[in-house]
Amino acid sequence: MQLSELSARSGVSVSTIKYYLREGLLPPGDKTGERRALYGEPHVARLRLLRVLREVGAVPVADLKGIVAAVDDRSRSVHQMFGAAFDALTKTPDQEPDSASRARADDLVEEAGWTSVRSDSPERDRLAYLLHVVTDLGAHLGPQEWRSYLDLVDLLAAFEVNRLHPDDPAADRDTLLRRMVVGQVVFGEFVLSLRRLAHAHHSALRASDGPVQQ
Amino acid sequence: MQLSELSARSGVSVSTIKYYLREGLLPPGDKTGERRALYGEPHVARLRLLRVLREVGAVPVADLKGIVAAVDDRSRSVHQMFGAAFDALTKTPDQEPDSASRARADDLVEEAGWTSVRSDSPERDRLAYLLHVVTDLGAHLGPQEWRSYLDLVDLLAAFEVNRLHPDDPAADRDTLLRRMVVGQVVFGEFVLSLRRLAHAHHSALRASDGPVQQ
Repeated sequence: MQLSELSARSGVSVSTIKYYLREGLLPPGDKTGERRALYGEPHVARLRLLRVLREVGAVPVADLKGIVAAVDDRSRSVHQMFGAAFDALTKTPDQEPDSASRARADDLVEEAGWTSVRSDSPERDRLAYLLHVVTDLGAHLGPQEWRSYLDLVDLLAAFEVNRLHPDDPAADRDTLLRRMVVGQVVFGEFVLSLRRLAHAHHSALRASDGPVQQ
Repeated sequence: MQLSELSARSGVSVSTIKYYLREGLLPPGDKTGERRALYGEPHVARLRLLRVLREVGAVPVADLKGIVAAVDDRSRSVHQMFGAAFDALTKTPDQEPDSASRARADDLVEEAGWTSVRSDSPERDRLAYLLHVVTDLGAHLGPQEWRSYLDLVDLLAAFEVNRLHPDDPAADRDTLLRRMVVGQVVFGEFVLSLRRLAHAHHSALRASDGPVQQ
């Protein structure tokens, strides 16, 4: 297909496609003339992946290269490819966590049984940072409560992964990664929105049950 | 206590306290001279609430007045006070949702049994917007899957509300609201962080089980 059709199929503007070509984020098409080339389905899949990373994941353009390199390097497993994208999607904490918070974060990950999470995953630092903030604010969960909390989150994530990454041997690496990002980011926003609604409901129940402070 | 002690106790700088006094967000202290006043525990509680709203909730200063008005108006129930803060914490969707997505969002809220959520809550529009995005991206859950998903989020939120808003008849309205915001926002970040770790783990299991695309 020609550039104009590629743009229509992928929902990415012609000027952005040209930028991705220059940056090496999109492989060149088959040249059919001085300024013309033909593109195929892999180009559509790559552009849809880039669009989801940019628009849904808010991944900075600078980070796209690392992700695309992981997709294109077929000596890296799907798991390693997912890892590169996970890292790009993780908010870096504003400050390095203290070692006590980091040890606490590692304990929680182990207790949850998430043994496949790399020890150098930036998400462990992010969790350590949040543990530090919560302790600072005086909120506190006991060991049994953490256990219940981790179990609930684990159920939710297992449900999402199994539902959103269906077994699909025919899917190419770009499509597998796009599905992972949608599951990760869009359903993350979903969980937060549903959770706010559930909080509003349960808070209302508590407020009407409990003593009204007037 | 004097202004300097109030600043130390609340963790809010003297210049910010003066700003809050000018804006009417903090009630004046008891005047003891031309430029001196004494402050009490309610001032500490109010400043801690304002700090959590600003630093944790990222609530714009312009929205603080509406929340403080809801706290100070004792004819409004705790539930109504929470409602004002919930609205300020909700990200407004970039665009008005279409009526089909909004109807779908209302159906989900009803199916989840969150009957205490106001029909004019902006969170319903936010959910409608996300439903629209997901449909656009081709992700789709069937009715049974939605049911399981809603049940999981409901369990999580009920756990958080009951744990983070303990029965405490002695707590003043500022403190009740501060706890609600911490539960809502900080534990929201927690859920997302834990969920990303759980996703990384379950995705890794799937990737090593499934066909490796190399």
